[in-house]
Amino acid sequence: MKRKIRMGMVGGGQGSFIGAVHRIAANLDGQIELVCGCFSSRPENSLATGQSLFLPDNRIYASYQEMIEKEATLPEGERMDFVSIVTPNHVHFGPAMMALEHGFHVVLDKPMTYTLDEAKQLRDKVKETGKLFMLTHTYTAYPMVKEARERVRRGDLGKIRRIYVEYPQGWLYNDCADVNKQAAWRVDPNRSGKAGCMGDIGTHAFNLAEYITGLKAVELCGELNTFVPDRLLDDDGAALIRYEGGAKGVLTASQIAVGVENGLNIRVYGEKGGLEWRQEEPNTMIMRWPDRPAEIIRTSNGYMSGIAAHNSRTPGGHPEGYIEAFANLYRNFALALRSILAGEEPAPETLDFPSAEDGVRGMRFIETIVATGSTENKWIKIID
Amino acid sequence: MKRKIRMGMVGGGQGSFIGAVHRIAANLDGQIELVCGCFSSRPENSLATGQSLFLPDNRIYASYQEMIEKEATLPEGERMDFVSIVTPNHVHFGPAMMALEHGFHVVLDKPMTYTLDEAKQLRDKVKETGKLFMLTHTYTAYPMVKEARERVRRGDLGKIRRIYVEYPQGWLYNDCADVNKQAAWRVDPNRSGKAGCMGDIGTHAFNLAEYITGLKAVELCGELNTFVPDRLLDDDGAALIRYEGGAKGVLTASQIAVGVENGLNIRVYGEKGGLEWRQEEPNTMIMRWPDRPAEIIRTSNGYMSGIAAHNSRTPGGHPEGYIEAFANLYRNFALALRSILAGEEPAPETLDFPSAEDGVRGMRFIETIVATGSTENKWIKIID
Amino acid sequence: MKRKIRMGMVGGGQGSFIGAVHRIAANLDGQIELVCGCFSSRPENSLATGQSLFLPDNRIYASYQEMIEKEATLPEGERMDFVSIVTPNHVHFGPAMMALEHGFHVVLDKPMTYTLDEAKQLRDKVKETGKLFMLTHTYTAYPMVKEARERVRRGDLGKIRRIYVEYPQGWLYNDCADVNKQAAWRVDPNRSGKAGCMGDIGTHAFNLAEYITGLKAVELCGELNTFVPDRLLDDDGAALIRYEGGAKGVLTASQIAVGVENGLNIRVYGEKGGLEWRQEEPNTMIMRWPDRPAEIIRTSNGYMSGIAAHNSRTPGGHPEGYIEAFANLYRNFALALRSILAGEEPAPETLDFPSAEDGVRGMRFIETIVATGSTENKWIKIID
Amino acid sequence: MKRKIRMGMVGGGQGSFIGAVHRIAANLDGQIELVCGCFSSRPENSLATGQSLFLPDNRIYASYQEMIEKEATLPEGERMDFVSIVTPNHVHFGPAMMALEHGFHVVLDKPMTYTLDEAKQLRDKVKETGKLFMLTHTYTAYPMVKEARERVRRGDLGKIRRIYVEYPQGWLYNDCADVNKQAAWRVDPNRSGKAGCMGDIGTHAFNLAEYITGLKAVELCGELNTFVPDRLLDDDGAALIRYEGGAKGVLTASQIAVGVENGLNIRVYGEKGGLEWRQEEPNTMIMRWPDRPAEIIRTSNGYMSGIAAHNSRTPGGHPEGYIEAFANLYRNFALALRSILAGEEPAPETLDFPSAEDGVRGMRFIETIVATGSTENKWIKIID
Repeated sequence: MKRKIRMGMVGGGQGSFIGAVHRIAANLDGQIELVCGCFSSRPENSLATGQSLFLPDNRIYASYQEMIEKEATLPEGERMDFVSIVTPNHVHFGPAMMALEHGFHVVLDKPMTYTLDEAKQLRDKVKETGKLFMLTHTYTAYPMVKEARERVRRGDLGKIRRIYVEYPQGWLYNDCADVNKQAAWRVDPNRSGKAGCMGDIGTHAFNLAEYITGLKAVELCGELNTFVPDRLLDDDGAALIRYEGGAKGVLTASQIAVGVENGLNIRVYGEKGGLEWRQEEPNTMIMRWPDRPAEIIRTSNGYMSGIAAHNSRTPGGHPEGYIEAFANLYRNFALALRSILAGEEPAPETLDFPSAEDGVRGMRFIETIVATGSTENKWIKIID
Repeated sequence: MKRKIRMGMVGGGQGSFIGAVHRIAANLDGQIELVCGCFSSRPENSLATGQSLFLPDNRIYASYQEMIEKEATLPEGERMDFVSIVTPNHVHFGPAMMALEHGFHVVLDKPMTYTLDEAKQLRDKVKETGKLFMLTHTYTAYPMVKEARERVRRGDLGKIRRIYVEYPQGWLYNDCADVNKQAAWRVDPNRSGKAGCMGDIGTHAFNLAEYITGLKAVELCGELNTFVPDRLLDDDGAALIRYEGGAKGVLTASQIAVGVENGLNIRVYGEKGGLEWRQEEPNTMIMRWPDRPAEIIRTSNGYMSGIAAHNSRTPGGHPEGYIEAFANLYRNFALALRSILAGEEPAPETLDFPSAEDGVRGMRFIETIVATGSTENKWIKIID
Repeated sequence: MKRKIRMGMVGGGQGSFIGAVHRIAANLDGQIELVCGCFSSRPENSLATGQSLFLPDNRIYASYQEMIEKEATLPEGERMDFVSIVTPNHVHFGPAMMALEHGFHVVLDKPMTYTLDEAKQLRDKVKETGKLFMLTHTYTAYPMVKEARERVRRGDLGKIRRIYVEYPQGWLYNDCADVNKQAAWRVDPNRSGKAGCMGDIGTHAFNLAEYITGLKAVELCGELNTFVPDRLLDDDGAALIRYEGGAKGVLTASQIAVGVENGLNIRVYGEKGGLEWRQEEPNTMIMRWPDRPAEIIRTSNGYMSGIAAHNSRTPGGHPEGYIEAFANLYRNFALALRSILAGEEPAPETLDFPSAEDGVRGMRFIETIVATGSTENKWIKIID
Repeated sequence: MKRKIRMGMVGGGQGSFIGAVHRIAANLDGQIELVCGCFSSRPENSLATGQSLFLPDNRIYASYQEMIEKEATLPEGERMDFVSIVTPNHVHFGPAMMALEHGFHVVLDKPMTYTLDEAKQLRDKVKETGKLFMLTHTYTAYPMVKEARERVRRGDLGKIRRIYVEYPQGWLYNDCADVNKQAAWRVDPNRSGKAGCMGDIGTHAFNLAEYITGLKAVELCGELNTFVPDRLLDDDGAALIRYEGGAKGVLTASQIAVGVENGLNIRVYGEKGGLEWRQEEPNTMIMRWPDRPAEIIRTSNGYMSGIAAHNSRTPGGHPEGYIEAFANLYRNFALALRSILAGEEPAPETLDFPSAEDGVRGMRFIETIVATGSTENKWIKIID
């Protein structure tokens, strides 16, 4: 297929953070072109955004419903192949369902939906339609996280015993909703859902730990806190977790760890070795051993596994960052979609991105942490 | 008083780790001289150890009972001033009580005793006799930990919200009791007490958090794990903690974090700022702020507080380590004791070392974490 | 102007490293589209590369001469706006001169040319034609390097005294030319020029120091080394440098620092403060002060200067890497070119990229270091 | 020999930095006792210092001449075994020569003497008398520096090619001589000698590089700078160095690197591997390899060599610092002296401390760097 994959976008108008990141990530490898969008619920913002992106006016839409309907009527050689949905959480379910029903593949920002029930419906719709679906848990797309998963999988660490996963941030340490558009919807239960901090970043931490270790959490006991006065959702929390097979975890997430930027990190210890990774220095992983020196694993060296090499672009020492990780998601999605459009089976490494099932799992985590943290105050099973 | 303070020692025979460290720490500042000892329950080890330390044979004893009794009969210008007890946990209570009853001041390794009840008896005996008593929680004697406490106290961080304290180690990742004398007693409930990992290092973490923040834990919910087969005590655990005033904590301790050396660390976040300190790089503390760059606080600079300066010896950039921290305990104890022996009031900064009350508190933590971790599986109040 | 800027490319065929990076960098911000290219001197490679980039066959050329001539005849609404030249050093001068003469703007990889004389001719041609010209010294395009320059400029460090700039790499530690295409031309004087290591990476270090401090080197005394047997060019070297105004520098560059990846770093100390930056962790800069704690400056925080903010895309804690730095070059070039094409004056921050004059200066450095290092063995003035 | 080794001290009165460090270092392992001293040229300071150290008044002397003469007349069971000289540079030669001539062993702070000629005389006197002599280059006594030397010696790095050794400090960035006693004599040529910064810290860097690599410098080309107005000696400098066998070095030292504490560090790269060590984090060394991950070597692990293990005291993760390194010098000296006093051959590992020959070599470096840096401005051979 001698053309770029065609993307439409829902959300990401001027002033948005994550929408611009999605576009950059989609641009980066030259596999995808943006062909249309409804960038805001305010039509003038949508139009201005689309024009600044060099879209023709007739492909800039005033509502996502209009966009999906009209694009579906365009000839195959012109209409979008997939839609990328980058709206606040409460506007995930609607456009995603509608896009699938109109035959479009879907990329969706996390967490999957506003409620667990919506997530299950959406997952079922993905299965039913057979369309390609990706949830953008960016952090598992770093080459070093791929490497970590691969090393656990092949047994370098032995049986996993202990997992520490943390996601501290400080940017919501005070009442910033008035002045910060990014903050405003995240602390609003009507747009964000049942959980604040745990929905926004706790889900990333939960996903990262399960992704790297390949283990499913089965029970947890946690606590949610709201430190900033008058805030309606949690801005901090912690949980003890029991994983299948006996591994034990501690998960913490906070948005009031004042001065911390984006400190997602994980440490995993098994019977034979351990690994440690920090998102803010993503090209480095420390591996620890009982009887020989710790090793500094670095992106893009010859000793890296194939799956990590597939997800990096530059030689060692040329730092790859958050945008490249995000672009890995889009590149893999585009490569898989290219195969599908050509009637071929996608290569396994191109399908290594978060699925609808992962999205459901994230919503289960939110339901469970809210239950244990706010009310139960004891160990409970992951809600089904 | 124109002489060194005279120390006797119980424990610390050849092959011991912590006994040698106590002696080095006591030597370092030239304030203390070792005058006698019962270094082992095996008389030949005690004798050999004492001779290697240049003690005369008549001051090397075969039992602590003999030592305390005989020293008590020596003339004031000759007999030891205090006894330092560095035996395994189950041999803390006996010599400490006897020393106090015979008029000697006491230095005792942590945790305080084998049981909480013993700790309370010992604390009461200290009060009753009025003797000077120090528990050697080394880690709070680092100059940077003093600085951290002072900065919290004077309000730099604002009201404390969130505390993460961790103590990962890896050295007990497998069954090493046969080959490692240090390991053997720590994993033996008959010598160590109710808790393994939590008694040995969890108490340090608990103490460090309370010391720096000045806050008392009031409730906790935790879990203890034993990963190594056939081990009789916990080798890993974690707890969620509620502190007075609403601060929340997570405490983790592990001896199976394979490849980790001695990773005690703490992070504290308040309404206005945060601090982060790691024992393995003890001369550095990071302070974080919401709206300006993080700062790298370094031992022995002009901006350090008086209490930190009092506990350091070299200019900035000349690393001070574990032994210097340990020596701070002994120097402060010696300076305070010197004042007491001279009939003077000790200066406040010389009394800044862990007390009998701190020791009781550590035993309470052990009782509570064992209760919640092994059986209760829910939040419980710190046991009184 | 409601369209993307159109780019043609010379070089960057399959198997090339830097060509792919240029394309990614040009894609990233959605300002530039690749419309044509001559990607290799081997026509079949050029064709295959162009097709893999979704170019129509009639815009894939077999020689750069053909490309420049044919593109010049296309209508204005179709032909490329500028050419990006990413060939080995000995094929810089030809296509750059020809492109300028045919009315195209030019982006050129560093070092500028094969000889100093060529560089001067090219610089004069840029002046004569008035076309926009950019040399891709990537490392000065990191937001933190912009910040460093700004802080020196506004006097935070006081008068500069001491500069240490280093560029250690290890990848050429042995004779790898047979197996490594990237290595082969760099160690070949017929393709690389008079200098090996100093031309390839020493120029980056030299440029970085002058860019950040705003000071020109006036004299240097250095030494070039060739450690790998049978290698024809330097693979290591060092120089003492005297800057205008009395600052002193040490510049080192090596490709035999075995195991080091891409360790470019700089430290600058003035009368009032110092700064330290390392390319492998590019979002962090340490600032040092005589009487207060060192500060950790981090990309994308509110305290950053305007020029740094202009050159970053994500909030603090979302690492920006080498590709984003490279994209800053292209984005600024595209923004400036967009203004020029619209008949407007480019905004100053869009012109903050390396110029032809900077390219000449780099070639002067090469001539001088080769002279002092290979033959003179004493201080000499920067060759004019 | 069932007693401690007896030390006398020249210098180190109240207000001195290095004298107190020497005493702490000598105390630490319980092998040495201070028995007498002349601590200051001001008798009342000497007396007060001695009394604060619990010395009897009759062993506190008013001049070093008096001390050496009187001690020499005391019975063997009472008089000092060796003298430790910790005065400014211009008062090294006199007491050292006199002590040797009166039969005492000698410990001497670095640099050895005020002039190269004095150093040679002193070295000859050591040979002539056969007394034990130690120069206190502390930094080579860190266990990790021992490890580095051992790994180079046994060939882990292959043939050495490239050495970078740096000693940046910032404390003399302005004119502080009036207010800082430590600074005052260091910037005074009448007390310090021909070189300021290079004598005080450049010699440490030079010694460290030769110690670790086992290579002798043969030629150098350098530059000395004096940045602070009215200062009479260099406060900064750099040199390119040629070592025997073809290795190349860069040595820098500065006391105006504002905000830097005590940044001595070294990096060595050979044909097969490299090592990197920083004094401010002395328990860590990075080893780099061409084709596998870098390793983090840490003090006191089981994989450390015997000579490193001999020079450490605590398990891994219990930081050992500057004082322990200094104490290694004294412990080794005391162990060697104990053997000598017992008529035995000292074990080789106890003699691993800087000798009189090393002291002469340091003075040669000073002469050479002053010659090349101040006047010659070209490569010259190390002055003989």
